[in-house]
Amino acid sequence: LHKSPDHRNLVLPKPLLAALRGELTPRVPIWLMRQAGRYLPEYREIRARTPRFFERCYTPELVVEITLQPVRRFGMDGAILFSDILVVVDALGGEVEILEGRGPVVEPLADARALERLSAERLRPHLEPVYEAVRLLARALPERITLIGFAGAPWTLAAYMVEGETSRDFHRARRLARAEPDLFARLIGLLIDATSDHLMAQIEAGAEAVQIFDSWAGLLPETEFERWCVRPVLAVAERVKARHPAVPVIVFPRGVGAGYRRFRDEPAVDGLSLDATVPLLWAREELAGVCLQGNLDPIALLAGGAVVERETDRILDALAGRPFVFNLGHGVLPETDPAEVQALVERVQRLRPPIDPARHRPAGEAPDDRP
Amino acid sequence: LHKSPDHRNLVLPKPLLAALRGELTPRVPIWLMRQAGRYLPEYREIRARTPRFFERCYTPELVVEITLQPVRRFGMDGAILFSDILVVVDALGGEVEILEGRGPVVEPLADARALERLSAERLRPHLEPVYEAVRLLARALPERITLIGFAGAPWTLAAYMVEGETSRDFHRARRLARAEPDLFARLIGLLIDATSDHLMAQIEAGAEAVQIFDSWAGLLPETEFERWCVRPVLAVAERVKARHPAVPVIVFPRGVGAGYRRFRDEPAVDGLSLDATVPLLWAREELAGVCLQGNLDPIALLAGGAVVERETDRILDALAGRPFVFNLGHGVLPETDPAEVQALVERVQRLRPPIDPARHRPAGEAPDDRP
Repeated sequence: LHKSPDHRNLVLPKPLLAALRGELTPRVPIWLMRQAGRYLPEYREIRARTPRFFERCYTPELVVEITLQPVRRFGMDGAILFSDILVVVDALGGEVEILEGRGPVVEPLADARALERLSAERLRPHLEPVYEAVRLLARALPERITLIGFAGAPWTLAAYMVEGETSRDFHRARRLARAEPDLFARLIGLLIDATSDHLMAQIEAGAEAVQIFDSWAGLLPETEFERWCVRPVLAVAERVKARHPAVPVIVFPRGVGAGYRRFRDEPAVDGLSLDATVPLLWAREELAGVCLQGNLDPIALLAGGAVVERETDRILDALAGRPFVFNLGHGVLPETDPAEVQALVERVQRLRPPIDPARHRPAGEAPDDRP
Repeated sequence: LHKSPDHRNLVLPKPLLAALRGELTPRVPIWLMRQAGRYLPEYREIRARTPRFFERCYTPELVVEITLQPVRRFGMDGAILFSDILVVVDALGGEVEILEGRGPVVEPLADARALERLSAERLRPHLEPVYEAVRLLARALPERITLIGFAGAPWTLAAYMVEGETSRDFHRARRLARAEPDLFARLIGLLIDATSDHLMAQIEAGAEAVQIFDSWAGLLPETEFERWCVRPVLAVAERVKARHPAVPVIVFPRGVGAGYRRFRDEPAVDGLSLDATVPLLWAREELAGVCLQGNLDPIALLAGGAVVERETDRILDALAGRPFVFNLGHGVLPETDPAEVQALVERVQRLRPPIDPARHRPAGEAPDDRP
């Protein structure tokens, strides 16, 4: 049905895949978190016609179209599936709705009985339209462009499930984790199963790399960070790598500061996505064993013009000579001007970092095949 | 009128002051951010009688009483003035109100004209009741207990002033800083003046140590962190130290992760307050030049019992043999049980860390003078 990622890679090198595999690419590949979505007028048109968020997520043709929109316009090196981390919660049987302007609303999970009602068995049938979209995308994308699947990390999903909505500090979720660690561990265990399975299903449908989003990892104090972020994320990454060793796994433990070091020497982690607060010279020194990705401030992209140019060049300079994927430190903001996104992609794809051949094996460069 | 901090220190050593001066104290001193406030029934009684927050802040007798309440109950080693970082904004002429359950509401500052209307000249007369409270407290406190003054850092105050209210990401403030850096720099400059002046006035009234709260520093990406957090905070600390070299300055750049390293070698910074996410073995290694303070998770204190005991012992073990001040990683939460606070203070004051005399000069121990 579809060519395997490895096979496709033999045909034509993909800069994003090469960087994630630790190769120094002739130019830095770029994709942007939330590159498909609200800042694009063509997305807002689809949204006006299909206002239910999950309906957009579960209609393969819409997923394909929304995923391709930014790639068609800007020619990023990666196409991230249009979806949401909460489709997994929805598939498990958690009552969840995503409301425009308010974010996710979940029926809060407060006790063991609520946990019993969730089941990982529904996951693959419920999310079949998502996997169908991945299959369609794997066929539709130009060779140069890497198809990226993703999932929310167990802690971040659990945080929404317990809190019931987005929150500045997720006190309710953090309190349950402290007060009933056994119950919380069971929830996390279920989410490790579901998240791994969801990522593997995406890979089996044609995703060539996957990213695990632990958006709320930065709220966890040191020991809780180890228990609820690091170990579950590594458990997921290890399961995926055991089944699909050639598919790069990117981890995004947003806001964990010095905690990023915890992921630098893990064989199951190929890429580490940095939020905008991470000092890059520190990262260069301390996170040497892994391909870094990041970390332009989305507010800089919003400001645009000279601000984003200066920041882009600073980031490229700081990571020059290292396998590196350019990205934002967080998602594209809805008010962002698409022209700024275009200028950013062009700038990154034009600039070639100096190469230190003693340190890294350069990958072959792909010819320009922007769709 | 009142004895100078140095003079008082000759009479009887204060564990908190000694640790902040880099001495290894026979036991670890403790105080807690927001130790005076909403979790105490005697505070809630005062609040019921005086519902306007700023009225409580500007009535010296109430400030004294509220500041003393936790010290009287629990005998911490530090008494932090009951006040709010936004009194400075109020004194500058920013329209600000603090609403129960909602937090601060400020008339958003959007342009240069709004900035012109603010004036640092009003600061000392407007805040005279605060300084009067400090003078009364300096006389009222037992000798062992250190009186701590504080102020919000320029970035955190500016964030509230531009945003108009508390926020998860302070996009409006961060966007103004990117889009109109000259205007933002003028606001920050005014706040450097006001914050330094406010801290010096507290010291001149009897505060023996001061803390600068940069609660929203963790939102700033790398270069903005340097410009809007590090440099303004150091400017404030340096002005204070130039006038009052013997008074320790504690900096709390909450959530800055690896950015904490930026403050480790600064002569004007005596203490560095760690939020709960900072890994302590990393901090021990990377932040060696400064007295550390922190970093118990307020949610652990809320959970109480064995959770808080285990976390407390872990923190004390990790920082043993170093000048160290026990504190929370953020403020006491309103739902916290006062009995848990009592147990925590007793546990920390009872436990003596092993001493490594080769590394540090131990300070004399104060006799027990709990009020």
